[in-house]
Amino acid sequence: MNEKKDTNMQRDFTSITKLVEPRSVAVIGASSDSGRIGGRPIKWMLKAGYTGKIFPVNPNREEIQGLKAYPSIADLPEAPDAAIIAVSASHVSAALEELGNKGVGAAIIFSSGFAEVGDEGAAAQADLLDIARRHGIRLLGPNSLGMFNARRNYYPTFTSAFDTAWPRSGGVSIVSQSGAFGSNLATLALEKGLGAPLCIMTGNEADLTVGELIGWLATDPETRVIAAYMEGINDGDTLIAGLEAARQAKKPVILMKVGRSSLGSAAAASHTASIAGDDVVADAVFRELGVIRVKTATELLEFADIASHGIYPANNTLGVLTVSGGAGVLMSDAAEDFDVSMPAMPETAQAEMKEILPFGAFRNPIDCTAHLINDTSLLDKFMSRMLADGGYSSIISFFAKGAGIPPFAPILFEEMERQRLKYPDRLFIVSGIASEELRRRYAEIGISVFEDASSAVRAVAAMGQIGDTFAALPESPPNVPDGIDLPDDAMSEAAAKSVLTRHGIRFAREKLCADADAAVAEAEAIGFPVVMKIVSPDIPHKTEIGGVLLAVPDAAAARAGFDTLLQRAAAAQPSAHIEGVLVAETVSGGIETIMGVKNDPAFGPVAMFGLGGIYTEIMQDVVFRRCPFSPAVAEKMIESTRAGVLLRGVRGQPGGDMEAAAEMLSALSVFAAGAGDRIDSIDMNPVIVKEKGKGAVALDALIALKDASKP
Amino acid sequence: MNEKKDTNMQRDFTSITKLVEPRSVAVIGASSDSGRIGGRPIKWMLKAGYTGKIFPVNPNREEIQGLKAYPSIADLPEAPDAAIIAVSASHVSAALEELGNKGVGAAIIFSSGFAEVGDEGAAAQADLLDIARRHGIRLLGPNSLGMFNARRNYYPTFTSAFDTAWPRSGGVSIVSQSGAFGSNLATLALEKGLGAPLCIMTGNEADLTVGELIGWLATDPETRVIAAYMEGINDGDTLIAGLEAARQAKKPVILMKVGRSSLGSAAAASHTASIAGDDVVADAVFRELGVIRVKTATELLEFADIASHGIYPANNTLGVLTVSGGAGVLMSDAAEDFDVSMPAMPETAQAEMKEILPFGAFRNPIDCTAHLINDTSLLDKFMSRMLADGGYSSIISFFAKGAGIPPFAPILFEEMERQRLKYPDRLFIVSGIASEELRRRYAEIGISVFEDASSAVRAVAAMGQIGDTFAALPESPPNVPDGIDLPDDAMSEAAAKSVLTRHGIRFAREKLCADADAAVAEAEAIGFPVVMKIVSPDIPHKTEIGGVLLAVPDAAAARAGFDTLLQRAAAAQPSAHIEGVLVAETVSGGIETIMGVKNDPAFGPVAMFGLGGIYTEIMQDVVFRRCPFSPAVAEKMIESTRAGVLLRGVRGQPGGDMEAAAEMLSALSVFAAGAGDRIDSIDMNPVIVKEKGKGAVALDALIALKDASKP
Repeated sequence: MNEKKDTNMQRDFTSITKLVEPRSVAVIGASSDSGRIGGRPIKWMLKAGYTGKIFPVNPNREEIQGLKAYPSIADLPEAPDAAIIAVSASHVSAALEELGNKGVGAAIIFSSGFAEVGDEGAAAQADLLDIARRHGIRLLGPNSLGMFNARRNYYPTFTSAFDTAWPRSGGVSIVSQSGAFGSNLATLALEKGLGAPLCIMTGNEADLTVGELIGWLATDPETRVIAAYMEGINDGDTLIAGLEAARQAKKPVILMKVGRSSLGSAAAASHTASIAGDDVVADAVFRELGVIRVKTATELLEFADIASHGIYPANNTLGVLTVSGGAGVLMSDAAEDFDVSMPAMPETAQAEMKEILPFGAFRNPIDCTAHLINDTSLLDKFMSRMLADGGYSSIISFFAKGAGIPPFAPILFEEMERQRLKYPDRLFIVSGIASEELRRRYAEIGISVFEDASSAVRAVAAMGQIGDTFAALPESPPNVPDGIDLPDDAMSEAAAKSVLTRHGIRFAREKLCADADAAVAEAEAIGFPVVMKIVSPDIPHKTEIGGVLLAVPDAAAARAGFDTLLQRAAAAQPSAHIEGVLVAETVSGGIETIMGVKNDPAFGPVAMFGLGGIYTEIMQDVVFRRCPFSPAVAEKMIESTRAGVLLRGVRGQPGGDMEAAAEMLSALSVFAAGAGDRIDSIDMNPVIVKEKGKGAVALDALIALKDASKP
Repeated sequence: MNEKKDTNMQRDFTSITKLVEPRSVAVIGASSDSGRIGGRPIKWMLKAGYTGKIFPVNPNREEIQGLKAYPSIADLPEAPDAAIIAVSASHVSAALEELGNKGVGAAIIFSSGFAEVGDEGAAAQADLLDIARRHGIRLLGPNSLGMFNARRNYYPTFTSAFDTAWPRSGGVSIVSQSGAFGSNLATLALEKGLGAPLCIMTGNEADLTVGELIGWLATDPETRVIAAYMEGINDGDTLIAGLEAARQAKKPVILMKVGRSSLGSAAAASHTASIAGDDVVADAVFRELGVIRVKTATELLEFADIASHGIYPANNTLGVLTVSGGAGVLMSDAAEDFDVSMPAMPETAQAEMKEILPFGAFRNPIDCTAHLINDTSLLDKFMSRMLADGGYSSIISFFAKGAGIPPFAPILFEEMERQRLKYPDRLFIVSGIASEELRRRYAEIGISVFEDASSAVRAVAAMGQIGDTFAALPESPPNVPDGIDLPDDAMSEAAAKSVLTRHGIRFAREKLCADADAAVAEAEAIGFPVVMKIVSPDIPHKTEIGGVLLAVPDAAAARAGFDTLLQRAAAAQPSAHIEGVLVAETVSGGIETIMGVKNDPAFGPVAMFGLGGIYTEIMQDVVFRRCPFSPAVAEKMIESTRAGVLLRGVRGQPGGDMEAAAEMLSALSVFAAGAGDRIDSIDMNPVIVKEKGKGAVALDALIALKDASKP
């Protein structure tokens, strides 16, 4: 996990091809009983007509399901591209070793009894990976339900899903960590008419992860959309490499990652770490890489379906044509919820349409009322104007049951087909009730049908997000300094400020004073009122022990304050090593923010910005991003929070120095990237952002280093 | 709209019965052509076998669709219970008058061309209401698609929806303002197997509103669940009365109200005669009355379906039984999103279950892995323990495609049926893929099947909310004082504070001073530092003109400050009437909140509480409730905001005096209820809530009165 990051390197995913599209497959533990896990894949492949070679391996049989069986792996007539391992856990490593000797390229391990059952199983799983690495075998599993590639009639899986039907052809590929959920998705896809012929279930992920398979799918010419399901992130770098590959190949990734509610350590010492649950960070990474994250299987399949048409409008706008005013309002609500722009039709076009149909409404939604069903000549008139004059990149036509019932249904279909051909870069959706057959006909001309009008808008939003991601130029990250000097043990506030100052962070004027005389002298030099704080590496949260004095008004108070702070520290933590008392200028006014860094186990250092002070945790108004990033990116981060709204200025308030805040946040991210895994977390709370042009200053800093004794 | 509120009175909805269940119906403008709006209802009723009498009225025919036709309303042999009016707009009022003379009880007006087409139409619509009131006729419409009551084979509607199938029998009743959307809902209900035999579409709502029909449905013994769709709130009092009746009858109301967004409101205004009320206020009222508000048609129908089983667990807990660990995590995520409690199984039960199936996980979700499909004896063992030892009031069983495929499917069905009978008060859900026929069989034993596991959890959440609403004792509102003395014109801050003080609101110590000498004297009496503010009824937002001076340190500064404030006021608004300068104590520390009142056009005075200062607008962390309410209710309101979390105290912060804040908010609500429609709005910003036991003080108050010259 702490290996050198290589997230910006191009990965090579070609070693996976033998797993997904092998020309030959051995089945270790092959069975004549097509209900057993060693029998079912053979049954499926024979039934489907897999054109590669199948080599059943079973020491007790000469023939299995009509195929010649081999007594051992060594006896195979050639090195198979792939092998299915369907033997009990204790026999897996021997089988893998033999396969390696034979020269197999990939192995799918159905067998369970590995990491999912505890430490011993985890050790056995680690052994499998060693064997695989030694022989250059790519592993799927163990504890995997397998996969299927209906494009090659290749079914190395023991799911029972194909008793009734094969998957449909199409451009959606599914990759799922969970076998049960993956096969459920595949079944739902089939039921909903979605073409998802390729589905890979990674199980324990000893070697291949969902992330790496996303990378392979990005290079696969037959995959147009990647639908993924994950429970945990086993290798952040590979996931990022896979997602980057997909983005570069302009293939949308629709991702369901569960385990959102698993909170980060609530007792974490750092604000940043306590707010940054693993999932919050993962979510930020997904957003950065343009992944469309969904919460439900329904959304996953709906988005995959519409995305398979390949229309992703950047700077998306939505025009709605409806026979129901109510549905129009509902879609306007949904557009606001999902942040989809619905600009009005040009005034002149509105007026002209109003002349054609006086009781219609033509701003957007275009409410043509039920008259349209009676006078179908209006359909083309209105639709054409929406496309030409409105210029909408996405069009939803809501016709309720009219979309599916003659005589209107075929008229609508023809119109949609005509406009689809005329405007091949626009996203067309029909919302209404249609038979499965009609839905399939729409799908063939690249149009999705949504029964639920709100879902249609949500899908438009997702396609627009994908479009914006694909259209955006990748950010070039700033340079990261080498050789950042950090101590081996805990760092005091003063030490933290000193190193951060060297890396471009501005702090309020202050000095560490060893005795009361020095404190009074410094306070006089800075000018009253001053702030005084106890400084000890053993007291990270000063406020909680009364270790901070605000608005110290004069020399006498400063002298008394010095003693008070020492007494409080001694009372709270008698063994604490006291470095002295910090005397600092009072920074008044400005907007209180927090900046921080968390070293995420999957993604490395991640920087945070948010509203500061007592509001940080209550409001959870924070934003995260992988380090490092430029000031321009930092500004976008800040803008995405409500604290950003404050910085822009509201209701007569002056706002704050956005530029200075963005520069500081970027500088922090560059520092954190340079320090890398040495750092556990950084908190700067508060960072006061002053009025525009007056800069930003951090008042406090806490750097928690990783305990070198822990991995 | 400004009539005396009677929301706490019981309403009588019986006059509506003749509309919904008439023994006879006349069709004015009856047609032999069953494709025309005057012909279609007759066709449906004849085809369905309506057992009441149908009287077609048409001066040009002796017979219509096999029925004797009457030349005029006067010629009818008896007074029909109800009449359908399907003539052009210009003939409607004459027909209604004749129907009134004949003694009809209710009229359904299909005709359009009324309020939806502008002022002239609105006037014609008002005339219809006059006629109806004069004759005691209840009106549905105009511009209504009609209704249907399949329970009586009564179809007074011109929808074409029944060409292929009739609605299913069942306990769900639909009431919708929009005809197109209502009939779409009915069609979707039919398609999804939902029993919704009664559907009423209100159109322009000249008389009957969705709210009043909800009230009738509450009294209807055959309605178990009310599914409603609204665009605007035309009569807040009646809506509240209807919702109250439903709550008292323990009938859930699942409501979709569109026009949530500003965008949506714009569309609503352009399309119906409705004035979209402030959605935030409507939302608060719905929550208060236990309405389950949904955003999509899918949710509306899903919730109506599961609610029709009549199981609404108060203090809901969810136990999940799953064959997929991933689906278990997904449902845990959803439970957190939808605020559903998923307590763990007792430790001993977990240990015993673990002994039966070592690789399972038994905390909750109960992950019995795919083993359960092989060893089906485990199903009853685990399910029984979940019900007995876990005591969950809701159970979701996730079996993916296993739920629908033999041999497991019938075993699961039997088990669910057995447990359903044994625990009739528990809510059982199956999540998986099942045929329509199997879904119907589950429905017959009171169990809903959800394909999407997240949707299943969302439905459990909704049923729990309904349960809590039904279990809660209605709050008895505090007494409201009569005869609150308010001026006829604008009120200054001092006047506002004075009247609010008399009604129990505490303000900081302060005095209005007419000259600089008085100001200095008062400041010295209060003690420095003080706050000084300009006082003028013409300057409501002082801060924006620099009309507030904080931390005025001494007598000299107070004297200078007096002049500064006067100069600033004169510069900003030369014509402003200046009452003087307010000198007030400085209240430091505490938590800054805002309290206010808004006189909502639909629901009257509504009180607001939220986080104060610059955060109010940015954070939108506010809560609303109709006035008046008790301190106990106020405390629950405060608790529901994130500001409430601050008041409870977080991370070493002292928190605030919750009791004092709740008392002040309640006092404000009582005052506002007493003042009633005289008040347009009240702002108290900030209200400083001090530490526990130290009270709360408002620092500012602004009362805006309604302009008496406006309605």
